[in-house]
Amino acid sequence: MTTQPAPQPTTTDPLRDSRFLRACRREPVDATPVWLMRQAGRYMAEYRSLRSKVSFLELCKNPELATETTIFAAEVLGVDAAILFADILLILEPLGFQLEFSKGEGPVIHNPIRETADVDAVRPLEDVEALGYVYEAIRQIRAGLPGNVPLIGFAGAPFTLACYAIEGGGSRNYQKAKAFMYSDPGAWDALMAALTDSTARYLNAQAAAGVQALQVFDSWVGSLSPDDYRRFVQPHMRRLFQMLDPAVPHIHFGADTGSLLELQRDAGGDVVGLDWRVELDQAWDRLGRGVGVQGNLDPIVLFAPVDEIARQTRRILGQAANRPGHIFNLGHGILPHTPVDHVRALVRMVHEFSAR
Amino acid sequence: MTTQPAPQPTTTDPLRDSRFLRACRREPVDATPVWLMRQAGRYMAEYRSLRSKVSFLELCKNPELATETTIFAAEVLGVDAAILFADILLILEPLGFQLEFSKGEGPVIHNPIRETADVDAVRPLEDVEALGYVYEAIRQIRAGLPGNVPLIGFAGAPFTLACYAIEGGGSRNYQKAKAFMYSDPGAWDALMAALTDSTARYLNAQAAAGVQALQVFDSWVGSLSPDDYRRFVQPHMRRLFQMLDPAVPHIHFGADTGSLLELQRDAGGDVVGLDWRVELDQAWDRLGRGVGVQGNLDPIVLFAPVDEIARQTRRILGQAANRPGHIFNLGHGILPHTPVDHVRALVRMVHEFSAR
Repeated sequence: MTTQPAPQPTTTDPLRDSRFLRACRREPVDATPVWLMRQAGRYMAEYRSLRSKVSFLELCKNPELATETTIFAAEVLGVDAAILFADILLILEPLGFQLEFSKGEGPVIHNPIRETADVDAVRPLEDVEALGYVYEAIRQIRAGLPGNVPLIGFAGAPFTLACYAIEGGGSRNYQKAKAFMYSDPGAWDALMAALTDSTARYLNAQAAAGVQALQVFDSWVGSLSPDDYRRFVQPHMRRLFQMLDPAVPHIHFGADTGSLLELQRDAGGDVVGLDWRVELDQAWDRLGRGVGVQGNLDPIVLFAPVDEIARQTRRILGQAANRPGHIFNLGHGILPHTPVDHVRALVRMVHEFSAR
Repeated sequence: MTTQPAPQPTTTDPLRDSRFLRACRREPVDATPVWLMRQAGRYMAEYRSLRSKVSFLELCKNPELATETTIFAAEVLGVDAAILFADILLILEPLGFQLEFSKGEGPVIHNPIRETADVDAVRPLEDVEALGYVYEAIRQIRAGLPGNVPLIGFAGAPFTLACYAIEGGGSRNYQKAKAFMYSDPGAWDALMAALTDSTARYLNAQAAAGVQALQVFDSWVGSLSPDDYRRFVQPHMRRLFQMLDPAVPHIHFGADTGSLLELQRDAGGDVVGLDWRVELDQAWDRLGRGVGVQGNLDPIVLFAPVDEIARQTRRILGQAANRPGHIFNLGHGILPHTPVDHVRALVRMVHEFSAR
């Protein structure tokens, strides 16, 4: 008579074992995970229809609508992760900035920073519940998403937020922000420190509310020289990543940062975002084996015929060469007017071409 | 009685021996040459005063005024080279495009390329005299400049011109141009070929009229991935540089091209432009000893206090490390509102800090 070994309990956790989170940990996957920055947005008819009834800020601040928008996009596209519907500038309101999204012009900050005294008036985020609508949306999204689809939370990085706060909105050259940085480095550091503390608290509250990963968007940092990044940004980014909840992976995103990648990696993050201006294989070689990468299709390729999209998708997957730790994405957000069927085709092709 | 050796005729040519042209040939210099893109422009009160009387296109097409503007800026700043006052889009008029510079909005092309048939209608520049006012300005500037100050002629590169021709003006993402390129590569190549032929003829006519160097401005090419540059741009750039008059040095300028530098070098040019996003020493190491470099101060540093400008100037000169072939410049054109005294201080500091 033989004794059977006691059966091992199968402790699989469908979230933890999802392609996206496995890739964040640089573990092998059955196919490359893919999601797309701004995957819920104006290029979708359903989104435009919703936005004809509510303003952008109303949508962000309504957990039910933010939940519906987030889940709808993830389901329609068949992507491997959902991303919270929100905006990187929401945090500026509890810091004392008057934020408005005006039609056509994008975000406007009515009381931008103009001088040192304005920095003193910035209130670091003490009560994270000022952004309670975000955590409520996270709880509802998490409850509504399939159990194997991770949810990504996010925030703007201090430099990018500082640019908005000083420029008073979008900018082509970040002339005011850089001039402020060069002219008053003490006030600059105070502003960056306040934004760093606030952002860390905000992101950790998102993690506590139920997201599975945190992405930091340093969307405008590619406008800096490497020397300026090292002096004016890197210490703050290092401190930010040190403060983030280590229980969830951290994605460090920047655009146009081909010359900053090593400096960004040294500042922190489990995964580094790459845009299309770099070759993924060369960039990953520079970054080394200690981090994953996310990217890096040019969003405008989605306006090309499907065979060109296929060609570029194969090229990027070939550069990643089945090395664990690649998350497929665009190099920046989806643009308005992008054909939805091309986005869906891209997601299908990433899975099909990379299936092991 | 001793016989005196016959005196050697001193065949010094003050233009050929100028710092700028010596640096273009990677010969040693007594101090690093410096000039600044858009050194004659809106940041100067004299320029704004002139522009209050004549439109931008009138100024470009009036050889006397273009001459006055060109020479005045070079003299006031004390730079080592003058650059023809003109615009990269002038060539589009004889190619059949209706060009306007509207107040505030920048250049507008009223009949942009929308489909393949529009490319067939583009007339390559047969009669270079359609731009005769440019060559007349060159002759007058050359006659008016000191005999040791070289004059730089220039044109837009085919990709940058194609972007304007397809977008119908400036653009943030070059979405229409790239979509056209991906969707109809045959028409794209035909357009690029016509622009390449036209640009080569135009630049060679500038050389014949008396400029000492030719700069090709590929201002927008940094929006492309390396793979797209290789497929859609590099063959045309290679052909362009092969056609240019070899009697004068060629400067290959691009902005935001940190990942394209080797590909640009391989396309052609004696000197490669660098913007501030790259470290000059690392970029020059990648390019190798066969080319000079031009750059690479962030134009926004000119809004900083003079001690910060000094710091960054020393850093860049230190990275060039007295290696022959560095021409100091900004990474892109001078911005409006730049303090003129800061620009003059920069020129003085480049000379002072680099004096051998």
